[in-house]
Amino acid sequence: MAKIQSISGFPEFLPAEQIAFNHAIAVIRKHYERSGAVPIETPAIERSSTLLAKGGDDKEIYGLRRLKADGGDDAKELALHFDLTVPLARYVAQHQRRLIFPFRRYQIQPVWRGERAQAGRYRQFYQCDMDVIGDGSLSLLNDAEMPYVIYQIFRELNIGKFLIRMNNRKILKGFLSGFGLDDGRVQDAINYIDAIEKVGVEKVNANLLNLGISTDAVEEILEFFSQTGSNDEILTFLSQKTGNEVYTTGVSELKQVSMAMKNLGVPEDYFALDLKIARGLDYYTGTIYETKLIDHPNIGSICSGGRYDELTGLFTTRKYPGVGVSIGLTRLLPLLIKAGVIQLPAPTVAPVLITSLQSKHIDSYLSYGALLRAGGINTEIYLEEKKLGAQMKYANKKGFQLVVLAGDDEIEKGVLLVKLMQTGEQIEIPVATMLESISNLLKNKG
Amino acid sequence: MAKIQSISGFPEFLPAEQIAFNHAIAVIRKHYERSGAVPIETPAIERSSTLLAKGGDDKEIYGLRRLKADGGDDAKELALHFDLTVPLARYVAQHQRRLIFPFRRYQIQPVWRGERAQAGRYRQFYQCDMDVIGDGSLSLLNDAEMPYVIYQIFRELNIGKFLIRMNNRKILKGFLSGFGLDDGRVQDAINYIDAIEKVGVEKVNANLLNLGISTDAVEEILEFFSQTGSNDEILTFLSQKTGNEVYTTGVSELKQVSMAMKNLGVPEDYFALDLKIARGLDYYTGTIYETKLIDHPNIGSICSGGRYDELTGLFTTRKYPGVGVSIGLTRLLPLLIKAGVIQLPAPTVAPVLITSLQSKHIDSYLSYGALLRAGGINTEIYLEEKKLGAQMKYANKKGFQLVVLAGDDEIEKGVLLVKLMQTGEQIEIPVATMLESISNLLKNKG
Repeated sequence: MAKIQSISGFPEFLPAEQIAFNHAIAVIRKHYERSGAVPIETPAIERSSTLLAKGGDDKEIYGLRRLKADGGDDAKELALHFDLTVPLARYVAQHQRRLIFPFRRYQIQPVWRGERAQAGRYRQFYQCDMDVIGDGSLSLLNDAEMPYVIYQIFRELNIGKFLIRMNNRKILKGFLSGFGLDDGRVQDAINYIDAIEKVGVEKVNANLLNLGISTDAVEEILEFFSQTGSNDEILTFLSQKTGNEVYTTGVSELKQVSMAMKNLGVPEDYFALDLKIARGLDYYTGTIYETKLIDHPNIGSICSGGRYDELTGLFTTRKYPGVGVSIGLTRLLPLLIKAGVIQLPAPTVAPVLITSLQSKHIDSYLSYGALLRAGGINTEIYLEEKKLGAQMKYANKKGFQLVVLAGDDEIEKGVLLVKLMQTGEQIEIPVATMLESISNLLKNKG
Repeated sequence: MAKIQSISGFPEFLPAEQIAFNHAIAVIRKHYERSGAVPIETPAIERSSTLLAKGGDDKEIYGLRRLKADGGDDAKELALHFDLTVPLARYVAQHQRRLIFPFRRYQIQPVWRGERAQAGRYRQFYQCDMDVIGDGSLSLLNDAEMPYVIYQIFRELNIGKFLIRMNNRKILKGFLSGFGLDDGRVQDAINYIDAIEKVGVEKVNANLLNLGISTDAVEEILEFFSQTGSNDEILTFLSQKTGNEVYTTGVSELKQVSMAMKNLGVPEDYFALDLKIARGLDYYTGTIYETKLIDHPNIGSICSGGRYDELTGLFTTRKYPGVGVSIGLTRLLPLLIKAGVIQLPAPTVAPVLITSLQSKHIDSYLSYGALLRAGGINTEIYLEEKKLGAQMKYANKKGFQLVVLAGDDEIEKGVLLVKLMQTGEQIEIPVATMLESISNLLKNKG
């Protein structure tokens, strides 16, 4: 007997969780497509050299090998992708002549990271990415489409109050370089500020002082990043401050993106300009986003992204600036279920079960099932020869809404009994109008 | 600059192909769910020992390793699954106490096989599987549900005339063992017969003689397997022949399954009983299926499956018989496109493009887009500052159905120009009824 044991870090859902997961994927896909993004998929496997070219961490990447290598092991050059961004860069560079730009694409696939397994960390997890890539240049308005789509998705997923927080890396860089910091120390300072909500102001204060920034300057920096107020207030605050060209460009970009979001109809109370949003990843060059659940701040950012100018830089000399967002659904969904934000659905995709009350009538049961299915109703037919008690137990466990029963009496009269599982009520309907009657019952009871 | 080169055997689609692929997946998913199957997904990665337990070929399996192993390499026990059947067996055995039986599930995921790369052979490809697993026993009627679902899928995919061919392994085994062959030679004979359409009768004749079967017996065997006729004629032929118990059971099963398929409404001309369908895989124990395209026989079987009694045997002592089918879409779709059976769609998921005729009106364009999207119409807004010529070129390349134009004149009059891309016709519609007008235009032009 082969030993069965789950492998740490590789999540596997039971059907109810999988149904909830697939529903979320369908909503994400719908809104990505609603805004015109086309789907692509890249193979799970890339050359290791491709993955490492963009600074992939070789301690995190799963390489391949042949279990039994006859001769050379050609799999040794291959590895599982650890995100969808590097494969996108490779895809764009490889197919640039056959793609249509701006290339507005989404990609929903698992990725793999050989991290040390720990609670909430997965070694296989889904990323749901949308990006727009321009050929040479890309309008700033695309930066407004990303939070617009994210707003649509999370609103439909009904996950409670959330806030899309937005900032611009040019503001951070421009402002910090105004204190005479070189690029390295600017990046260090950004990383410290990025952690401000996690580690607290005291700690960031100390870290900035350690960078050799003067006490006065640190005070000014922390005051800047602690700025609160409405979006208009933040924009006014930023505009009133004089700064270098990078800073001024950042402020202007943030203003334009905010304005475009308003025109796209994203309500003010779902997005906030927040100067301390910094995103650790250094490939972001402009707009950056994070999203948090107001009532569950401990879940952390549920969707992040931003603008990048140099993504394909290692694969092609042509410039392809882009902007994108990513939702890490594998991590998010179990947390939402655990927190009671999302209810676990019944473990069935079919609302209707047709029982096998008397096996001699199985021909009728099969034809009823076929009729309902042809009418677009997901229908299961109970095919085993079990007592009705066992069949009803099955119906209860799976959570069907309607259970159809037909024995000698019903068949003779040309009717069916439909049991409404939530109330226990039984309704007699004519076989001749079965599809209509059951559709109506589902509409009313759904 | 990192070298970019596609990796042989790992297919990657451009957007139009991906849209066609995703459409096919959606149709398959819909009909699997229509019959009540719940979705599951298993991790791409299993223990190597699990994959090898069910006779996985270690020359075909991709194992993992850490690119950089600090200390021990815990990835060395892991490998990529090569099908979805072994993971299903492991899943059922592992979660048996938390699953509801009969367990009717579908699973659509890529699998990996480290085969030698050659035309039409993929190292990563999707399998779209549906199976029903019983706890201890499983009604034969489930064997009729599989071809029913397959019929629904291929009919909706509109792939032309196809034929689901069905047989029963018990008939093969019972009939052949009647000639005094032991189990090993019965299996050999089945494998020879399985290849009859590929290698021809002559070759099978020689192979059977080589097994030590007498000339007379080989003649009788080949006559049996060459039997043609309507399904009723085949069933009559089988019933009139006397045979051992295994044979008689097989005939009775084939009869019951055929009858149930009729009751489910599968038209007679879409399924054929065919005694020479044998399926090489030796885990099938009863009903077996293959599906071929009438006009494209060279594509081979486009969907296969069958009944198996001992699938979970290596993982649990409890008996879980099952029946299932699998569609290998990655191989199938490009062949269907190449053969002209499926038309490649336009590389857009949005029928409507809103142009940026005058960038000063971008606020209006954004709000038009948001309005159409809120009304359920996939809509792209052209956001780049390009001349109209470039925008229309983009619209043509992507194949939008409708292109919306609004300049000073239109905005002042409160109207929009809608260009119907197929005819070139331009229609003026009021901004106030934009959603209705465009919905109607799409319905008429779609």
